[in-house]
Amino acid sequence: MHPDLTALIQSIQPADSAAMSRARVRQTQLTKPAGALGDLEELAVRLAGVFGNEKPHPRGVAVLVAAGDHGVAASGVSAYPPEVTPAMVANFLADTPAGPGGAAVNAIARTVGARVYVMDAGVNAELPDHPALIRASVRRGTRDLRLESAMTREETGTLILAGAALAKRAIQDGADLIVPGEMGIGNTTPAAALTARLLNLDAAEVTGRGTGVDDAALARKLLTVREALARTPASDPLTALAEFGGFEIAAMLGMMLQAAALRRAVVLDGFVEGSAALAGVALAPALRDFLFPAGECAEIGHAAQLSALGLKPMFKLGLRLGEGTGGVLAAPLLLSAAATLREMRTFEEAGVPGGG
Amino acid sequence: MHPDLTALIQSIQPADSAAMSRARVRQTQLTKPAGALGDLEELAVRLAGVFGNEKPHPRGVAVLVAAGDHGVAASGVSAYPPEVTPAMVANFLADTPAGPGGAAVNAIARTVGARVYVMDAGVNAELPDHPALIRASVRRGTRDLRLESAMTREETGTLILAGAALAKRAIQDGADLIVPGEMGIGNTTPAAALTARLLNLDAAEVTGRGTGVDDAALARKLLTVREALARTPASDPLTALAEFGGFEIAAMLGMMLQAAALRRAVVLDGFVEGSAALAGVALAPALRDFLFPAGECAEIGHAAQLSALGLKPMFKLGLRLGEGTGGVLAAPLLLSAAATLREMRTFEEAGVPGGG
Repeated sequence: MHPDLTALIQSIQPADSAAMSRARVRQTQLTKPAGALGDLEELAVRLAGVFGNEKPHPRGVAVLVAAGDHGVAASGVSAYPPEVTPAMVANFLADTPAGPGGAAVNAIARTVGARVYVMDAGVNAELPDHPALIRASVRRGTRDLRLESAMTREETGTLILAGAALAKRAIQDGADLIVPGEMGIGNTTPAAALTARLLNLDAAEVTGRGTGVDDAALARKLLTVREALARTPASDPLTALAEFGGFEIAAMLGMMLQAAALRRAVVLDGFVEGSAALAGVALAPALRDFLFPAGECAEIGHAAQLSALGLKPMFKLGLRLGEGTGGVLAAPLLLSAAATLREMRTFEEAGVPGGG
Repeated sequence: MHPDLTALIQSIQPADSAAMSRARVRQTQLTKPAGALGDLEELAVRLAGVFGNEKPHPRGVAVLVAAGDHGVAASGVSAYPPEVTPAMVANFLADTPAGPGGAAVNAIARTVGARVYVMDAGVNAELPDHPALIRASVRRGTRDLRLESAMTREETGTLILAGAALAKRAIQDGADLIVPGEMGIGNTTPAAALTARLLNLDAAEVTGRGTGVDDAALARKLLTVREALARTPASDPLTALAEFGGFEIAAMLGMMLQAAALRRAVVLDGFVEGSAALAGVALAPALRDFLFPAGECAEIGHAAQLSALGLKPMFKLGLRLGEGTGGVLAAPLLLSAAATLREMRTFEEAGVPGGG
């Protein structure tokens, strides 16, 4: 393992349990019936643990969209051709009348005040220069996971560290909530293989329709995941990630590790992000304390990921887009949860009768 | 019926179906797999209908918190004493280090950029003057719904029109999303009676723990709702509302009617708001087109209200606070849904392959 990656993993410490205890006491003192804010209360307590303060004050939100291509996409495992990946990168960066970016993640990020970063993690195209494009590609797409290792161990480590570097930059720019996002035609196939291997599940339990493949393509996709799983017995997280891919999953893993190391909250979008999170928690169990799943997405297998992580999502809107869209949508809920814990007065401060 | 109320009800027209049709076509052209934004897509289409534009652009968010007291609160139907109502009004208006207001709704509203309006709809206390307090009280709390009509028909009409006037003011101030909110110790009791009567349900199906009453108080509360229902056969919405109360429910009904008449979206918080919405839809069926339930709250009976309205909530966080908190939390989701429909580029505009 690259020494920088070893150091990063070792630097991740659990959430601050003393701050969480103080936050739990404070929840009972705030001017509301006990438990009346429902799941927001535990989310706020967890944020207290992340930020080491019973009055947590997260501010900036950043969504880091890593894009990569997949050798397997040529096999018809997606409803879209691989050319969509570079076209969507251009879309993330486009000038539009509303501002930079014409994709869903851009529109939602503008609405909630999140900053969007776009990374070429390994797109199969010559991407034009753009001041907002972070270049981290070491190869134009992964190798076909059915036939060989999708990535080398060295490529994997490089992309993890590139994701970590981007998260560090976003945090230096002011982000306290980090939303890893992805774009990569075909990437629910490696995510399914990685999830099946890390959770010891059958391929059928984690292989879904992704962007919306039909029955025939779903059958091909399932066969592909089975072939990839049969090709290699790799079960340690970094080897499995290298075997199945992809570059953007490795980059998102690095973002998560770095955000946790710097004690920032990670908002988890969907299934592909979830596969990176599973690898991350296998490498650094304390990472879990920093993860906040946004919604349960429509992709089969996401529920199994959340169950393995032991974390409850905030909504169930049936999203299955990726790009970090769900994570950005959830950011105001997390910021609000923190605000209630931080800004509400206590029964005593407010002179309201009935406090515990 | 007061002629102004008759005119208000008659002025409510259905959502713009032509704009909704154009929005549905546009959803198929935007740079995302068909349906990949899940429930956000239909929410965006409904917003297109509200605002009469396939690129809806809602901006300001306002939460209008109406406070009122209830004669029935003396009977021990709440976990809190009635003195909490005026104390919480003071809390909504208090100067705090974070800004105006030390209650949950204030903290969340600051986070999402919503403006808070506070109305005395009939609090049982002499409230000190405050520049941000809207005075609409005609009586210091309702009469006891077990024994007599909680409000007169005239009082009911006055409060509905006061709520409408506040909604109009908020809209003139720039609000496109109106969140009715409430504070009133004991108010889930009249809300339960009103819901049971309007939906023809048994009291037990709609009488819950409110702010968290114990089993003995829940039994008293259920008996109270049964007595109120047995006392009067009133079933038309305005008479039933007058019979059961309360002032803040009447005010919220007026807010909803006025928002719909001015073609703004209404974000529905919890069970008490739901009871006002049921009365509103009974008076003006087209109001439904303007209602957007935030979350399914923890109060028993809320699910029945949503089912009767035929509307799906956005989340299920187990909130049971009121104040409009859930509605304010949902506002960024609605603004984001509108933003995707308005700001995303089409496959053609973006040059992305794979469009419809």
